[in-house]
Amino acid sequence: MTLSPSLVRDFQKLLGRENVFTEREDLLSYAFDGAVLPPRAPSIVLMPPSVELLGEALRRAYEGGLALTARGAGTNLSGATIPEPGDSAVILTGKLNRILEINQNDLYAVCEPGVVTADLFRKAAETGLFYPPDPGSMEVSTLGGNVALNAGGLRGLKYGVTKDYLMGLEFFDWRGRLIKSGSRTVKCVSGYNLPGLMTASEGTLGVFSRLILKLLPAPSRTLSMTAVYNNVAEAAESVAGIIAGRVLPATLEFMDQKCLKAVEAASKIGLPTEAAAMLLIEVDGFYDEQVRGDAEKIRLICRKNGALAVDLPESQTERDRIWEARRGTLPALARLRPSVVLEDATVPRSRVPEMLEAVGRLALKHRLEVGTFGHAGDGNLHPTILCDRRDPKEFKRVEEMVDGIFEAALKLDGTLSGEHGIGVAKAKWMEKETNRATIEFSLALRGALDPSGLFNFGKKVV
Amino acid sequence: MTLSPSLVRDFQKLLGRENVFTEREDLLSYAFDGAVLPPRAPSIVLMPPSVELLGEALRRAYEGGLALTARGAGTNLSGATIPEPGDSAVILTGKLNRILEINQNDLYAVCEPGVVTADLFRKAAETGLFYPPDPGSMEVSTLGGNVALNAGGLRGLKYGVTKDYLMGLEFFDWRGRLIKSGSRTVKCVSGYNLPGLMTASEGTLGVFSRLILKLLPAPSRTLSMTAVYNNVAEAAESVAGIIAGRVLPATLEFMDQKCLKAVEAASKIGLPTEAAAMLLIEVDGFYDEQVRGDAEKIRLICRKNGALAVDLPESQTERDRIWEARRGTLPALARLRPSVVLEDATVPRSRVPEMLEAVGRLALKHRLEVGTFGHAGDGNLHPTILCDRRDPKEFKRVEEMVDGIFEAALKLDGTLSGEHGIGVAKAKWMEKETNRATIEFSLALRGALDPSGLFNFGKKVV
Repeated sequence: MTLSPSLVRDFQKLLGRENVFTEREDLLSYAFDGAVLPPRAPSIVLMPPSVELLGEALRRAYEGGLALTARGAGTNLSGATIPEPGDSAVILTGKLNRILEINQNDLYAVCEPGVVTADLFRKAAETGLFYPPDPGSMEVSTLGGNVALNAGGLRGLKYGVTKDYLMGLEFFDWRGRLIKSGSRTVKCVSGYNLPGLMTASEGTLGVFSRLILKLLPAPSRTLSMTAVYNNVAEAAESVAGIIAGRVLPATLEFMDQKCLKAVEAASKIGLPTEAAAMLLIEVDGFYDEQVRGDAEKIRLICRKNGALAVDLPESQTERDRIWEARRGTLPALARLRPSVVLEDATVPRSRVPEMLEAVGRLALKHRLEVGTFGHAGDGNLHPTILCDRRDPKEFKRVEEMVDGIFEAALKLDGTLSGEHGIGVAKAKWMEKETNRATIEFSLALRGALDPSGLFNFGKKVV
Repeated sequence: MTLSPSLVRDFQKLLGRENVFTEREDLLSYAFDGAVLPPRAPSIVLMPPSVELLGEALRRAYEGGLALTARGAGTNLSGATIPEPGDSAVILTGKLNRILEINQNDLYAVCEPGVVTADLFRKAAETGLFYPPDPGSMEVSTLGGNVALNAGGLRGLKYGVTKDYLMGLEFFDWRGRLIKSGSRTVKCVSGYNLPGLMTASEGTLGVFSRLILKLLPAPSRTLSMTAVYNNVAEAAESVAGIIAGRVLPATLEFMDQKCLKAVEAASKIGLPTEAAAMLLIEVDGFYDEQVRGDAEKIRLICRKNGALAVDLPESQTERDRIWEARRGTLPALARLRPSVVLEDATVPRSRVPEMLEAVGRLALKHRLEVGTFGHAGDGNLHPTILCDRRDPKEFKRVEEMVDGIFEAALKLDGTLSGEHGIGVAKAKWMEKETNRATIEFSLALRGALDPSGLFNFGKKVV
């Protein structure tokens, strides 16, 4: 069966005409996501106005043989929300965007999947609570997408990533039945850990309808600092030194000279563009002695490892500027050339120096311009290759360099993707990180939970 | 096919005679675990001397149609390691007990599944690192069992439970093939989150061979304190008040009068046996100002909620005595009557007062003696029914009370089990907490990963 006019009418009757899109211009809007990959338009786009209708729409679409891709804001960088080939539907969660509860006594939130990440962060902050995961796209990304991709962010080092905050969830399976797992309690071992399984499943096992997310007391004190280096290795050694020194800053970010120059050109905020690298560090807590003590330990470690200057900006404005610079890095790099290919290979933290060296070597070898920034404290760097997607010769070199980055990461006990996901972009690489048996085990698991192979089938593992 | 003499010889040849047990006395030793449930002896017990031989033994046993139950120390309280009926093998991990690596730079450990929990704790502590999960049985329990049951402990409130520390793992599937997932990196989204899926899977999906566990910098300062109450409700309100006051102590434990009296009778350490309840609290951190500040906040909240006295024991000896009292509670209760039935239903933390009231009501109604202690800060209480398993009339009342506890917990947005597991003890209750569709989804998942239904088949979900 394919997408018949009667199925379209069915969806219109079920969801309302205003929530069903079949015009070419609409379909093209959902043909791509944050990844640099060829677009693929879906046959139909559905925007269920309620969780109940989501389940029913999903059941009918699955029965109708439509390949299904759930989509929050489409900010992922691995092609995980690019529609499947053939008859396919994109399911939008945009109207499922209610924060149902912020529980101040038990420190959790109950949200629909279409809630924007930053909205939960702000809503929690109003009551002195804290939702730590902060992917770069948090002002537009959705919580459903964050769980599906296990989004990370700047605070991963001290606070972990999305999976560390998912206490429970509800989702619809391929029959459109509601599955519930996890709890509002801190401890729960009832049934399989389906919140664990669904995290990072990239839409291949079901579509979320409700998320229970852990909140923390919001730290009342933060200190930001920067450390400037005239070579990259010293910055990388400082990162390793901080972790080995038993300090866990909330954030420990790296920017190389290319990134510093790009941001400075874009926003003129007085960055040290003559430096080879800069670390941006934030410590937080509830007591002055603690945050000042941590900041001082870090300052000493950075100086010992060769930092030219370690600054603690005094004013809030100055602090905001630093983090604006960091968050503005990718957009600033993107201004330099028509395309950017942002990598996400991740290594154990002590291997960051070796990984940075490997990236430098690969850039030279493949004659490519690369800016590297990222979550150095997590070993999660984002070497960003500046290129032109339309130049096939250059892009071949880009692809070779990406392969080289993966190889280097795996050789250093690392992983293909720290936080951006596998999607279609890296699926072919999975076997190198694990083995054939693991791929087959994963396919068997997926086969049982998606018997017709319609849930984002070409993603994650193939 | 059943357990033929030739299969026994096969195992003897593969593992060595000294690692294959078929004598009746040996088999009886593995017929039961920490749960109060009827014993069931296996047909054979295998103790692979290496991880490689574990995989091969598992493959042959599975092919031979033997039901398989992997067993660490058998300390679980839900019957998760009671062998299956019919031809069955227990696989012991006792010889797979090497700590392969403590990585001080990247803060993780690599362990075989048979490592005793406290051994990892101590080994990490030697280098200033900290493995937080501390189930009551940690001096004998194994890490493999901890992961299979997602073991909790006293430090769950601030530090989470076993699942929060599992970064990666390797295990053997039903074909005896090695499956690898997760990483040595802080962030990893390569492939399905199989560490998440395998956590709390109670041996129903495979047998672990290697675990990568996160470590933290060990806090350099701790303060212990006790708060004494002349009614249970005030103690419970203090717990809720501490969480709502945005303080997260490392430990926040509760003991009622029955428990205080039992421990005092057993160990004469000067506990306030006239009190209705006591809280035992520990705060930790890296700075004096922080731990003293947190302790002071907690003291004020306890006093405001009616605590008669809040003590900060000065000496290490006194502190040790407090925690010895808490850890000795279950053994002390067990001296009072022939059997103890230890429950594990868990509620959101603010519902602890209601849950304690419900337990009191149920004890009166069913005319049973109950001592309640546990991780009040997690909402994870252990009402412990003192009884005699051999008295069928009394035990019927016990079973009715247990049902009543589950009903009360679910009514309070809680869960059947916080940390002890589902096993065979609670499998029949699972549907009440979730729904039929969730059970069927879970069975489909398990069916795909255990096609002959041999991995601890009667456990977890049925």
